[in-house]
Amino acid sequence: MKARIHVMLKPGVLDTQGKAIGHSLQGLGFDEVGEVRQGKVIEVEIAAADAAQAKARLDEMCRKLLANPVTESYTIDVVA
Amino acid sequence: MKARIHVMLKPGVLDTQGKAIGHSLQGLGFDEVGEVRQGKVIEVEIAAADAAQAKARLDEMCRKLLANPVTESYTIDVVA
Repeated sequence: MKARIHVMLKPGVLDTQGKAIGHSLQGLGFDEVGEVRQGKVIEVEIAAADAAQAKARLDEMCRKLLANPVTESYTIDVVA
Repeated sequence: MKARIHVMLKPGVLDTQGKAIGHSLQGLGFDEVGEVRQGKVIEVEIAAADAAQAKARLDEMCRKLLANPVTESYTIDVVA
């Protein structure tokens, strides 16, 4: 089973990487660009009986390792 | 308009970050985890007449700045 986890900074947390990308894009002439936010996408192969079990374990992985609970939020999509 | 860009290492390119995450997860007892790959997700606010125009400009941004054409591939989703 394959899952895709998105980890993004919570709204209100300064996204320096996103700001840097935004400034660079505008410097390249992409004036139509507004706010830019960057996060992580993590694709995980996982053995599980079903999607629900996979999601529960992936949630545990996020809480224990993949996402910082203070500054980051995450979403889990079990893809296949 | 909001778009979401995924930038991942191309298959065959060693994903050291993904490997490190995989080892850490197994060290935490998540033995059911197989291959792990990590990439970037970039959310961009963009002013455009329509989704097609937005996608064309976002593709240009990826080729010029956001993705390394040698080692990375990207997908663009115009979300709203």
